[in-house]
Amino acid sequence: MTLETLKHLTPRSKSGTRWYNEIVQKAQLADYSPVKGCMVIRPYGYGIWENIQKALDKRFKERGVKNAYFPMFIPYSFIEKEKEHVAGFAPEIALVTKGGGKKLKDPLVVRPTSETIIYDMFAKWVDSYKNLPIRVNQWCNVVRWEKRTTPFLRTTEFLWQEGHTAHATQAEADQEVREALNIYEDFVKSFLALPVIKGRKTKFEIFPGADYTTTIEALVRSGKFIQAGTSHQLGQNFSKVFKVKYVDKFNKEQYVWNTSWGMSTRIVGTLILMHGDDKGLMIPPRVAPVQVVIIPIYKNSHQKMEVAKAVSGVENLFKNRGIRFETDWSDNSPGWKFSQWELKGVPLRIEIGPLDIKKKQLVLAKRTGGEKEVLPKVKLDEKIEEIFDDIQGSLYSSAEKYLKKNVVRVNSLGEAKEALDSGAKAVKAFFAEESKKADQAVRTKLKLTPRLVPFESEERVGKCIFTGKEGKLAVLGKAY
Amino acid sequence: MTLETLKHLTPRSKSGTRWYNEIVQKAQLADYSPVKGCMVIRPYGYGIWENIQKALDKRFKERGVKNAYFPMFIPYSFIEKEKEHVAGFAPEIALVTKGGGKKLKDPLVVRPTSETIIYDMFAKWVDSYKNLPIRVNQWCNVVRWEKRTTPFLRTTEFLWQEGHTAHATQAEADQEVREALNIYEDFVKSFLALPVIKGRKTKFEIFPGADYTTTIEALVRSGKFIQAGTSHQLGQNFSKVFKVKYVDKFNKEQYVWNTSWGMSTRIVGTLILMHGDDKGLMIPPRVAPVQVVIIPIYKNSHQKMEVAKAVSGVENLFKNRGIRFETDWSDNSPGWKFSQWELKGVPLRIEIGPLDIKKKQLVLAKRTGGEKEVLPKVKLDEKIEEIFDDIQGSLYSSAEKYLKKNVVRVNSLGEAKEALDSGAKAVKAFFAEESKKADQAVRTKLKLTPRLVPFESEERVGKCIFTGKEGKLAVLGKAY
Repeated sequence: MTLETLKHLTPRSKSGTRWYNEIVQKAQLADYSPVKGCMVIRPYGYGIWENIQKALDKRFKERGVKNAYFPMFIPYSFIEKEKEHVAGFAPEIALVTKGGGKKLKDPLVVRPTSETIIYDMFAKWVDSYKNLPIRVNQWCNVVRWEKRTTPFLRTTEFLWQEGHTAHATQAEADQEVREALNIYEDFVKSFLALPVIKGRKTKFEIFPGADYTTTIEALVRSGKFIQAGTSHQLGQNFSKVFKVKYVDKFNKEQYVWNTSWGMSTRIVGTLILMHGDDKGLMIPPRVAPVQVVIIPIYKNSHQKMEVAKAVSGVENLFKNRGIRFETDWSDNSPGWKFSQWELKGVPLRIEIGPLDIKKKQLVLAKRTGGEKEVLPKVKLDEKIEEIFDDIQGSLYSSAEKYLKKNVVRVNSLGEAKEALDSGAKAVKAFFAEESKKADQAVRTKLKLTPRLVPFESEERVGKCIFTGKEGKLAVLGKAY
Repeated sequence: MTLETLKHLTPRSKSGTRWYNEIVQKAQLADYSPVKGCMVIRPYGYGIWENIQKALDKRFKERGVKNAYFPMFIPYSFIEKEKEHVAGFAPEIALVTKGGGKKLKDPLVVRPTSETIIYDMFAKWVDSYKNLPIRVNQWCNVVRWEKRTTPFLRTTEFLWQEGHTAHATQAEADQEVREALNIYEDFVKSFLALPVIKGRKTKFEIFPGADYTTTIEALVRSGKFIQAGTSHQLGQNFSKVFKVKYVDKFNKEQYVWNTSWGMSTRIVGTLILMHGDDKGLMIPPRVAPVQVVIIPIYKNSHQKMEVAKAVSGVENLFKNRGIRFETDWSDNSPGWKFSQWELKGVPLRIEIGPLDIKKKQLVLAKRTGGEKEVLPKVKLDEKIEEIFDDIQGSLYSSAEKYLKKNVVRVNSLGEAKEALDSGAKAVKAFFAEESKKADQAVRTKLKLTPRLVPFESEERVGKCIFTGKEGKLAVLGKAY
């Protein structure tokens, strides 16, 4: 990559879409593959996903969830068993029809999600209330045949985790749904610096086969909402068709209550769309594959040796602290290096040159901006976490400000139009979610879709701005 | 599971095959799935795989290998490009012919291995010697259509890691092949307590598309060898067909040299087949999902409370040390619990009852056998790692003894037959690997297959016991 290539990044302020596609390529997060709709996740992008996996997996395990692995191939007859489920997924299915050189009698679906195959196994494993609850999770690839794809945000094959549980009662399953969502909320806020709205999907937006779906939604800088994580109450819809039964304390046969919840590589796309500027990406320190880049500054080989010594002192400190860093010893100019690592979104840059060595100091530049800072070298160990927290915090605040500013509470269709004309990205209004007419009106009259009914206002009831019928306060916005 | 079910485990000494299949089910390591040839890896079995992943991944990263992810679907035309490769894999391929409700113009192969799709991407990424070497690894699922399957050992879908590298020179690639194999060797020996023979595959056993294949092979208790990990020198076979070229220091265009190396969930099967006895499995402490099981012993609720307090002291110690443990508070009898956790192969059991509390002691039973030991409670913290090392060591020694005893050096076909008739499982003999006739003779005359030419005797040359031609010292044994 030449300096020209770096300079030719389309400013985000000019076109968010072009900026996104260029960043994905230039920061080497992902690449297009020869297979339509499938992406290659390059090491820098995969490093983000690995950090997400590690942190999320720890939270699941703390709750007693155990990892397992279920077959990727699902008999088509399984998918058909739950009627809403098949209606939702049939159009997106990839089908294996040949295996080992022969035509298969029963074609196999490449999993778009694993409710059916997992609950078929639960039926073998559950017999008594003593076996319940079951809580499993798998990290895997899934396939949904997509017409239009964008790296990370929508790809035919993607990576995710899917948690699946079985409970004796509806109340326990309800609680599981909420707790899984709370993990996602806490995780994306604290780890990814993503503020979200938490609530449940409106009637026509629930997962195919669920009683209800809960979601956390992030408003990214393009003004669109992305579902960052979802958690579903599946009721007894699957347990009845897959015969997942148990004997309760009173020796009576009952169907279990299932929940499922998932987060995918889409979250990496959400992160990219949320944090950045015209110069490139900004990755929050907690998830960054490279938290600090060290740039040695020198003019001759004597200086280089002197600087190398100082650099290795800082590197050792980072190694001891488990801080992820890189030192850029390439032949490029410091200016080129600054641009490249800024584009890649590394949260902190440390410059070390002969003058700094003399003054026993380091020059620090935060990716989030502001003047370069000079820090006495001895203070680094004490200050580094604080600096990271500061960067993490300012990314969160900036995103939160954007969210608050761009979702406007309105009381009528007129007010909604006015707000949107004045630049708001979404509105919050009373909305009769059960009405097909109201659901359509959101799309035709505002060119938005119902995103969710936030939990915080779940209790409030008022007149739908489209139909006048009784409704809940819902967020209406654009979907990614 | 009832005590009867536990008791009805077929003794390994009676039938290793039945013992294996029962252990997989009864220890809840895996389960059969409704999809032919695919297995469900249950949490206890997946826990073993997760520990393997974590430990192996760390070793790769220490060598500078970075994880990435490549599409699971590969255009059929890619597989065809390297002629040995397609000949080797075509019979095992699963083919996606429909996507999104439509017939695909170009059917997609579900990856049996990813050389083709990865090197196609390398061609985009490599231009100069400055970009080399590239070292990537992916943890993923692969599919090879198998006729006869056994959980972990041979399944249509399995999990693995595949490392892929590109180098400027043959010598560098040779070194990479060896270093990757050394990682596998060190890992299986120290972490899984698996002694192995290290060497290269004979001519007719190399990976389809490779110049040569190196391997570590474990002799499991059924007397068969299992390839525990392989590392391939792919030469320029793939770089020439996928046009992976770079410009060297002298500005001349060159093809890169590729290597690939992999270890799969098959290693879990190897582990099961190696360590166990008539009572069940024995999992080495370093890889065990549960390293210690605590069994509280009590007769009434007063005793139970007293014991609970002592148990929680031990639990806290384990938590602080990061030791993986479970406490069995179920209603089953102590005897039932002992049997169950022995069957599951938990390396150490600790019993705590009222008498032990009075005496400030713990009762320890190692899964590897011997008398129960009594340990003063205050000594636990100091001794626990030593106890684990002791168990790990005795599992290794026992397996190593088996390997040494059962591979016999022979100088003629007569000696080979005699050794095998006397109970040896494999022989080491001079073997003309280049000769199709010798290769066949191993199979017809000894009912064995050539396993490998061990590195330790690579330099030795002698007369082939089948053909009299010049050959290398090779191990001839049964393959799993």
